[in-house]
Amino acid sequence: MAKWRDVLGIGFYEEPNVGFNAYRLHFNENLFLPREYYESILSVLLDPDLIRYYTEPLNPTLNELIAKHINVDAGNVFATAGGDEGIRLLTQFALHGNRKLLIIEPTYSMPRAIAESMGIRVEESVLNPDYQLNVEDIVKKSHDADVVYLCNPNNPTGNVFNKSDIEYLASRLNSLIIIDEAYADFAGLTLINLIKHYDNVAVVRTFSKAWGLAGLRIGYVVGSEVIIEGLRRISLPHNIPYPSIAMLSKALQLRHYVEESIREMIKVREYLYGRFSELGLRPLGSVTNFITFHVFKPNEVYEGLFKRGFILRNLSGKVMCEDCLRATIPPMHIAEELINNLEALMKSHLMDT
Amino acid sequence: MAKWRDVLGIGFYEEPNVGFNAYRLHFNENLFLPREYYESILSVLLDPDLIRYYTEPLNPTLNELIAKHINVDAGNVFATAGGDEGIRLLTQFALHGNRKLLIIEPTYSMPRAIAESMGIRVEESVLNPDYQLNVEDIVKKSHDADVVYLCNPNNPTGNVFNKSDIEYLASRLNSLIIIDEAYADFAGLTLINLIKHYDNVAVVRTFSKAWGLAGLRIGYVVGSEVIIEGLRRISLPHNIPYPSIAMLSKALQLRHYVEESIREMIKVREYLYGRFSELGLRPLGSVTNFITFHVFKPNEVYEGLFKRGFILRNLSGKVMCEDCLRATIPPMHIAEELINNLEALMKSHLMDT
Repeated sequence: MAKWRDVLGIGFYEEPNVGFNAYRLHFNENLFLPREYYESILSVLLDPDLIRYYTEPLNPTLNELIAKHINVDAGNVFATAGGDEGIRLLTQFALHGNRKLLIIEPTYSMPRAIAESMGIRVEESVLNPDYQLNVEDIVKKSHDADVVYLCNPNNPTGNVFNKSDIEYLASRLNSLIIIDEAYADFAGLTLINLIKHYDNVAVVRTFSKAWGLAGLRIGYVVGSEVIIEGLRRISLPHNIPYPSIAMLSKALQLRHYVEESIREMIKVREYLYGRFSELGLRPLGSVTNFITFHVFKPNEVYEGLFKRGFILRNLSGKVMCEDCLRATIPPMHIAEELINNLEALMKSHLMDT
Repeated sequence: MAKWRDVLGIGFYEEPNVGFNAYRLHFNENLFLPREYYESILSVLLDPDLIRYYTEPLNPTLNELIAKHINVDAGNVFATAGGDEGIRLLTQFALHGNRKLLIIEPTYSMPRAIAESMGIRVEESVLNPDYQLNVEDIVKKSHDADVVYLCNPNNPTGNVFNKSDIEYLASRLNSLIIIDEAYADFAGLTLINLIKHYDNVAVVRTFSKAWGLAGLRIGYVVGSEVIIEGLRRISLPHNIPYPSIAMLSKALQLRHYVEESIREMIKVREYLYGRFSELGLRPLGSVTNFITFHVFKPNEVYEGLFKRGFILRNLSGKVMCEDCLRATIPPMHIAEELINNLEALMKSHLMDT
């Protein structure tokens, strides 16, 4: 008896559709890139014939462009439709093993949802109280895990894991290790070099965050030849549209805008860290473009800010972050408005009771 | 012991990367749409902020646009990154059942590759000699199939299956039935109405073929609420980039170009059918924008045409089509060149031996 309807029994990564008019502080888009950057990208000439035709199978030209951009061999790069597609494809490797994904919580919610959408078992290892990896626990739990997912810098804690811990895990585990570097550009760091020594390490990167191109849906995986070959076998051949590829090619010539935007963002992050602390909101230190903070009544504050036009991420379902909200760092005038609104909310009856 | 490297043991849907300078007659793109159509599409104004931001989760606005376009409820539409993503997502339903896909051969190669990429078993039912469905065989083989895939009109045979057979299967089977209508626009037919009566029917459609927009990577699934809900649970939330969505929205206002291009294409298809027959190449009747024909030495003719700049699809690995090639219908002057080159090839030594 066929049971395709069983798919309705699985979990669900549901995002609020808040439109584009509120202050979107929930997706960690880069809110510091100037209009000129986008106008330059949009000025790229598009070839009508390349709208008509299918894109190059498995994107060899795009892979070369990205490889040059990060200074690795093109054979170690696999372009994906956003970083999420990289996570999905790498998780799919588990379908050919024992089918278990180990995730390091608290972390990005998507890997769990992706694994559940494929009927893959999910186990979790929780961070130590200092937000570093519990290496012993990860080693123990990954003996039968095909794939291990960690995000570095981590979302939502905003910190960097010890490189020596990650390298130890790479050398010690038989599992495929996904290192999600969605926020690495903000911190000016990367573990891409690990792929030279460990063929089980796959680094997932995206142009949606620091490069401010979430609407184009392009990311990439950097990994050993065996990982790239596996991705070639399980990917659809035309996974990225031509206009997105053409616009990304233009954007890669505009790195100075990205670098300047990060410098500006860091100033506001420091401002917010100070103001949150003054308000008694206990922010977590962050090397990314978001800041997570403890708050007395997270659901009420989340709702209160939502009504005032600020969309944050409510982390109250997450281990270690049960009383936390997360905000994308916005330009200074919005950051000030956010603080003003938070103060007002905290003074209101919601906070007194 | 983790076995993620097992992914390298699976089959592989490898496409030739022939670039854009040869005559591309292997992907069934619409080669009849005029430059003005594309220039109008490319003239659409893009909003810089929508490059910066993530697209709407699960594309509610795009779903409504498509629903209006095909005159169904938005709740019955799920937009996908090309038709292939629709097939992939629907095949993924099998991961929550007994994990078997039944395909009706000869057909499009992608569903088998997708299923194998997920570790899903594939079984096949071969068409009757008249290229119609072997209904009895399908019923027998689908008792434990979670998903059944068929393409209508069929690729590469180019014909339409009897509607009564498909409707009988929909009523009789417990499986999810994927009806791939990639070529239906060329034939002016659709089975979308079946979704009102059978909640296990999912119709997969694309803008890559008749609408000439393969480079944008947009398709959609039409199905019952239960199917759409399942897709919402297993899809990544931002599966289609903003520039593609914006350009599609423009294209949907330009239907007259598409209709005219189909009329022109049909004239050339009739010309090619006649000329192939005169050359003794035994073409199959087609309601699509491709034509499949029997030829004495398919590999040699394929290679010979390739060297002369014509990329066809070599079907010699396919059941019932072992001695067949398939060509996208090109504009008349290219069709005439194709015939001239075929004649020359047949007269050459390759054909005499």
